[in-house]
Amino acid sequence: MSSENNKKPSLHTVLTPQLLDLYEIKDSIVVIIDVFRATSTMATALYNGAKKIIPVDSPEACIEIGNATGGITAGERDGKIIPGLSYGNSPSEYPRSFIENKTLVITTTNGTKLLHMALRSGAKEVITGSFPNLSNVVNYLKAQNAPVILGCSGWKNRFNIEDTLFAGAIIEAVKDQFTIHCDSSFMANQLYMQQKDNLPEYIKTLTHWHRLAAYGLEADMLYCVTQDIAPSLPIFRDGALINGI
Amino acid sequence: MSSENNKKPSLHTVLTPQLLDLYEIKDSIVVIIDVFRATSTMATALYNGAKKIIPVDSPEACIEIGNATGGITAGERDGKIIPGLSYGNSPSEYPRSFIENKTLVITTTNGTKLLHMALRSGAKEVITGSFPNLSNVVNYLKAQNAPVILGCSGWKNRFNIEDTLFAGAIIEAVKDQFTIHCDSSFMANQLYMQQKDNLPEYIKTLTHWHRLAAYGLEADMLYCVTQDIAPSLPIFRDGALINGI
Repeated sequence: MSSENNKKPSLHTVLTPQLLDLYEIKDSIVVIIDVFRATSTMATALYNGAKKIIPVDSPEACIEIGNATGGITAGERDGKIIPGLSYGNSPSEYPRSFIENKTLVITTTNGTKLLHMALRSGAKEVITGSFPNLSNVVNYLKAQNAPVILGCSGWKNRFNIEDTLFAGAIIEAVKDQFTIHCDSSFMANQLYMQQKDNLPEYIKTLTHWHRLAAYGLEADMLYCVTQDIAPSLPIFRDGALINGI
Repeated sequence: MSSENNKKPSLHTVLTPQLLDLYEIKDSIVVIIDVFRATSTMATALYNGAKKIIPVDSPEACIEIGNATGGITAGERDGKIIPGLSYGNSPSEYPRSFIENKTLVITTTNGTKLLHMALRSGAKEVITGSFPNLSNVVNYLKAQNAPVILGCSGWKNRFNIEDTLFAGAIIEAVKDQFTIHCDSSFMANQLYMQQKDNLPEYIKTLTHWHRLAAYGLEADMLYCVTQDIAPSLPIFRDGALINGI
């Protein structure tokens, strides 16, 4: 058992983008987590047949790349579509009848920023994770035998609970195959185990619920904690996220 | 109720020093938390009659200020007294028979660094908190009617569980008197409520327990989660922590 233990790759949880530089990103698989709602929307668009998703870190880049690629531009600030872009950040906006075979160019407050930070830090692979594609993320990580960073997008560099909760869900499913000496991961896992049978009620207590509920987005958030409802595997290849399943 | 609510000051929890700059420190009371063991030791030394504690952020400054003040120099790295200093970072080293009326000049890996960051950021008051002086910290915060930052020292800028647990203990005791819209605080409070009846066993599962137990410091750590065993109130005045009780 102990010699087997020594061969297990490491797993760490990064609670906010501002902590990313404390961890060994190079040669790690980084899972970008932005439960409300970027990575839930990405999983959904790819599951519904989007050709690819180009995540960009500013509205200006979104317009420019949208024009260059003929892609659909998407992004919100404060619950409204950003002027100059065409769609928002709701998974409900991307059914198969609309998004199939199309390119989505998207910018979000937290998730796309962290994704670009991970790429710049030399991540071996970047995937995105959310409850709607949890099992595919878990199966992918179990199959790689490589160090893993669970990257929580948080809120403007601060910690948030929902991303940490999802990190805890991944940890619960993969922990036997990884060496975990990381208080952030232990806390995330405890939080998830404490709340996992009660997620739709628990999320109604969160700061982010109140922020988005003010825009009438309750149904979106309930969707975003529904496990495996959009079973894709967004993985970064040649400048875009494609469905790796 | 709602007009009363509007008058409550804010409370935020900063999970690691690396996140401090995201918060409004100026004009806030900052509680420095380094459960294993800096702030537990500071509470103990002042409770046992130390005249003052000068927290410094390097061994070099410790030696220099120790020489200038005739104070006792203290600091550890990796469980050993730092060469050139005289004592370590264990609360057991500072009984009344030794420390009464003396000045302690101390440097630690995480806590003294965060304390200096808070001072540079213009904190209105800086106090230190730990389970050994929990009730005094709580009573002080309740009496001030000012914004509060609970500053967790963490471990080399990473999140740690024991400091967050203590932040959660403070929050549980003061939350009715503050406006709290802070996921870090909610998480800390949940973690504490989940573990509060089981602290001596729970801490044995932590990464820091294993690190310090390797140096034979189990008794220190059990002391450091004993509530109100050293009821002082370390508060920063004129370059040093003194007992504000």
